[in-house]
Amino acid sequence: MSYKAVKLVTRPETDITPACFELVELDIPALEPGQILIKQTHMSLDPAMRGWMSAATDSYIPPVGLGEVMRSSGVGEVVESRNDRFPVGAKVAGMFGWREYLVSSGEGVSIMPQELPAAAILSVLALPGVTAYHGLMEVAKPKAGETLLVSGAAGSVGSLVGQIAKAEGLRVIGVAGSEEKCRWLVEELGFDAAINYKSEDLAQAVKAAAPNGIDIYFENTGGPVQHVAMANMSAFGRIVVCGVIADYNAATPAPGPSWTQIVKKRLSIQGFTMPDHMHRFGDLSQKVGAYLLEGKIKYRTHELKGLESAIEGINLLFTGANEGKLLVRL
Amino acid sequence: MSYKAVKLVTRPETDITPACFELVELDIPALEPGQILIKQTHMSLDPAMRGWMSAATDSYIPPVGLGEVMRSSGVGEVVESRNDRFPVGAKVAGMFGWREYLVSSGEGVSIMPQELPAAAILSVLALPGVTAYHGLMEVAKPKAGETLLVSGAAGSVGSLVGQIAKAEGLRVIGVAGSEEKCRWLVEELGFDAAINYKSEDLAQAVKAAAPNGIDIYFENTGGPVQHVAMANMSAFGRIVVCGVIADYNAATPAPGPSWTQIVKKRLSIQGFTMPDHMHRFGDLSQKVGAYLLEGKIKYRTHELKGLESAIEGINLLFTGANEGKLLVRL
Repeated sequence: MSYKAVKLVTRPETDITPACFELVELDIPALEPGQILIKQTHMSLDPAMRGWMSAATDSYIPPVGLGEVMRSSGVGEVVESRNDRFPVGAKVAGMFGWREYLVSSGEGVSIMPQELPAAAILSVLALPGVTAYHGLMEVAKPKAGETLLVSGAAGSVGSLVGQIAKAEGLRVIGVAGSEEKCRWLVEELGFDAAINYKSEDLAQAVKAAAPNGIDIYFENTGGPVQHVAMANMSAFGRIVVCGVIADYNAATPAPGPSWTQIVKKRLSIQGFTMPDHMHRFGDLSQKVGAYLLEGKIKYRTHELKGLESAIEGINLLFTGANEGKLLVRL
Repeated sequence: MSYKAVKLVTRPETDITPACFELVELDIPALEPGQILIKQTHMSLDPAMRGWMSAATDSYIPPVGLGEVMRSSGVGEVVESRNDRFPVGAKVAGMFGWREYLVSSGEGVSIMPQELPAAAILSVLALPGVTAYHGLMEVAKPKAGETLLVSGAAGSVGSLVGQIAKAEGLRVIGVAGSEEKCRWLVEELGFDAAINYKSEDLAQAVKAAAPNGIDIYFENTGGPVQHVAMANMSAFGRIVVCGVIADYNAATPAPGPSWTQIVKKRLSIQGFTMPDHMHRFGDLSQKVGAYLLEGKIKYRTHELKGLESAIEGINLLFTGANEGKLLVRL
């Protein structure tokens, strides 16, 4: 029996194009003792993939090798098993890659509760959730009553950062790229304010929404928001740099804000990437799961259909055209 | 009896000019019980003064009021006393201002050991010393064997940062603005390397001096060094932003480096200003004093003569023309 997979064959110079990938047919080998066969049902597309595709050796995890199946997290079902820990029918999650089937020893594969939808697993409990929780709670260390500004607020990490911050008693202002996203943030997720950076004067809108300054800026996007945030930080403010998606594709990244405010306001700026903290995945995932069970976290997904759809669809992340966590249903 | 003092009368828009100041003659009043009369012998000129002169209300301490005597630290001698804690003849240090004499209640005035030269007090133990110690040891938290890059390395703070770092077992690279300063850093202070940013290719020179990357960048100057430092940081590197003197005078401060490296390398950037930590002045000053006594710290001063010389002389700090800690001998 064969299945489809997508390999990385050319590294992107700036934008990701279909020429970066090759769709292949692979055979499913017979299982050896200890192995399981996973049929992937849902595959996650994430901004971090841009970094994994580039050759730069200074990134936080090694790049995907040329000719290797592209890296991704996903949810699936065990359809054959020669491993007692993983019965046939179990719902599992892990780094499965851009493929329909996967033979695994079970290492790095987690069994998930059957009743949890795959969309909730990939949107809330998986990378976005632990990233949002760690970045907000353990890097920024928020205090109730503080004001938080988050960019990419309607994105998978940003929407969770804002909701966790609300649950912790902060005033939350989101920046997003459409009226529809802004409405969703305020009306559905309970953000105190949302700013459409494409149609509003960002500097004016941030000042109006945070007249007493910003205590925490959670950076997901790069681009102009960081300059406005820096200009409006309160003394001893914290900036968490989780991603600068606007700059990942740029051959020459745009300059950042002047450092004068860093001294005047005694700001701290901390970059972090979740893979450094993967040993805490289970622990953090449980904490986010608690918010989910308490009904404090909502999510929405943008679903593509079929493995091939990822090849063009990944760029929705970089244009911001996705409305919700980007998934591929296989 | 009268004495000379210098008041701030106009705030600088960009550069500090003589028109900012007015030289006045003031009368020494008769002492009331509890008061002392201090004759200031040495007055310190520091980059932070530019901030104290501007009206911006978001700085770390309130600006000097228009019509008030300009703020500064200094060393002097008690010449009259109606306060038992301060006998006539005592050597004292404090925020005395741009004036020859000062009547004080003794609050904020410290008695210094007679054998310590005023130059050592103002160059090492006072603001520069505690700033260097706190910024390096408590903000950057260096480990022996790490590589440190410091800008403004021949300046009052930079030269102490480098020497304390050497005493702690780090590899130290300084950036300064003349051959003479670079020679002094390497030959007298024991820096491992020094780079003349005015004559060398900064990017190339930093790469050559720190082939394995920079673990700690101590920022004293702003300007081009921060961009090169950022590009050469090691993973989990720490940047301490102590001052951006090149930007204080600018009407529009230059942009900073792109934030992409902050995520890729998981860098932390921390701004700090010493006045936040003044309650620890005595404690920190003792720690720096220990290095001084062990002969691990050298300093040099650039002395101006007479109160009036400060009016033009303060700009030596902003052109980098001073060779050593800038003082005025009264």
